[in-house]
Amino acid sequence: MNSDAVNLERASSRFHLRVRFCETDLMGIVHHSNYLAYFEAARVEYMRRRGVDYSKWAEEFGVHLPVIDAHLEYKRSARFDDELVVEAQVSLITRVRLKFSYTIYRENSGEGEPELICLGFTTLACVGEDLRPRRFPADLNQLLIAAEA
Amino acid sequence: MNSDAVNLERASSRFHLRVRFCETDLMGIVHHSNYLAYFEAARVEYMRRRGVDYSKWAEEFGVHLPVIDAHLEYKRSARFDDELVVEAQVSLITRVRLKFSYTIYRENSGEGEPELICLGFTTLACVGEDLRPRRFPADLNQLLIAAEA
Amino acid sequence: MNSDAVNLERASSRFHLRVRFCETDLMGIVHHSNYLAYFEAARVEYMRRRGVDYSKWAEEFGVHLPVIDAHLEYKRSARFDDELVVEAQVSLITRVRLKFSYTIYRENSGEGEPELICLGFTTLACVGEDLRPRRFPADLNQLLIAAEA
Amino acid sequence: MNSDAVNLERASSRFHLRVRFCETDLMGIVHHSNYLAYFEAARVEYMRRRGVDYSKWAEEFGVHLPVIDAHLEYKRSARFDDELVVEAQVSLITRVRLKFSYTIYRENSGEGEPELICLGFTTLACVGEDLRPRRFPADLNQLLIAAEA
Repeated sequence: MNSDAVNLERASSRFHLRVRFCETDLMGIVHHSNYLAYFEAARVEYMRRRGVDYSKWAEEFGVHLPVIDAHLEYKRSARFDDELVVEAQVSLITRVRLKFSYTIYRENSGEGEPELICLGFTTLACVGEDLRPRRFPADLNQLLIAAEA
Repeated sequence: MNSDAVNLERASSRFHLRVRFCETDLMGIVHHSNYLAYFEAARVEYMRRRGVDYSKWAEEFGVHLPVIDAHLEYKRSARFDDELVVEAQVSLITRVRLKFSYTIYRENSGEGEPELICLGFTTLACVGEDLRPRRFPADLNQLLIAAEA
Repeated sequence: MNSDAVNLERASSRFHLRVRFCETDLMGIVHHSNYLAYFEAARVEYMRRRGVDYSKWAEEFGVHLPVIDAHLEYKRSARFDDELVVEAQVSLITRVRLKFSYTIYRENSGEGEPELICLGFTTLACVGEDLRPRRFPADLNQLLIAAEA
Repeated sequence: MNSDAVNLERASSRFHLRVRFCETDLMGIVHHSNYLAYFEAARVEYMRRRGVDYSKWAEEFGVHLPVIDAHLEYKRSARFDDELVVEAQVSLITRVRLKFSYTIYRENSGEGEPELICLGFTTLACVGEDLRPRRFPADLNQLLIAAEA
């Protein structure tokens, strides 16, 4: 892949969420599948802060960004009502692909350091309504690796 | 509403499912929101057994059946790995609406009677791709209250 | 049921959320089962604003509040990225039961009135770790119908 | 990790499922987070066919098998009502860890070859009720790499 250089510090945003009751399982912890939804919410917010409204944008340009691979490492359990921070970062961008890396921390641990909960990444492909590969619309690349507005 | 008479005995199908781990919550029971998914899976199967393939049908006729109201009564908890039976029944049908009633039982209780887990109903409206009300496609009404094929 | 009088204006809180991508379905709208999760998130927040931290409280007192019935009326579709407001209100409280009513609005409609999306209620029972009925812990009743802290 | 040799052909099971409506998203395809639930359902079934009833076993031995990492590659989209096959295979087992690899195919494609939908793996750790590492209960290792009963 022929990738643009990404300034990792700039191409990063933090998203806050609170664990919902329905996201727990019988072990009393957040079910591992929910972290993919947390990643997703964080990258939608990442885009919004750079002027990319994904819902309008998908409609306007007729493109979508399906996930083509995902990796997750679960470091500690999160629990109901925990306040989590998802740090989302663009780590690679090409004409047709976009890779985000994520770090999830827990902040509500009273005092001391934030606790690392989960690490991961997802790669997205740019596709049309027909789900076939498309180039990213012009100018989008630059927006996606810009600093927060 | 101008409703066709429905033969409740005939317009009924039973759908079997097994509770998934991810459907439980920290109380160790099935989270209450999953029953709407169980109802839905049962009515898709209900339709299939009457020759109505909902996915093809939605594409072919450009209509959808969104839920416009739902009611649930939780009688007993279901748990991970339980084998449940969802009995789905058409209880009302008009030119634009379709009401299903549901009874969920647990069968894996060793000996004795099945245990009642959940009762409920959902009303569906027939709409076009634009989500505006449409009449049910011709002949569909009769299929929907027919006996299983 | 022998219910305390509830001051509906006081016993009300508003919770804001944004629709997640994963909460949509192939009709392009929020899948109807998610509203039960929205109701739940709103009532957890309702309790928190009255000093009742549900997660700690469940652990401390060994009680849970499972849903024993639910009703939903879907008035308009919500869509990906919509900003919704869930108004949660205690509408009935007895020694062993607690009923919340909910109204969900969409606020991101540019100008004009908020749009009504969904109405509903859920009844919760107070139970112990064994899922058998328990009275609400002393003083909890008064907290639950208090004004926001 | 000190791993037992695994006979990959023997340590494999196939699980059938049908995509639920609620598992789709606004792109009209199965939302990518659901594949973790499909993997999970397949490994529960894998264990059952070797005499390991996970729900009873967790209760009896006081151990759980949380996921500590996961990887997914999405090859083709799956859609509502598709019939999928999840092939689950134990690819590594140690005293405290268990790795499953998965291949998901679509079978309802009329004629021709099954279509590859998704590949992935998950690693599980054996932990006690306190979520601290535990060795697998004696004899469990052998069961887990046995052929289907």
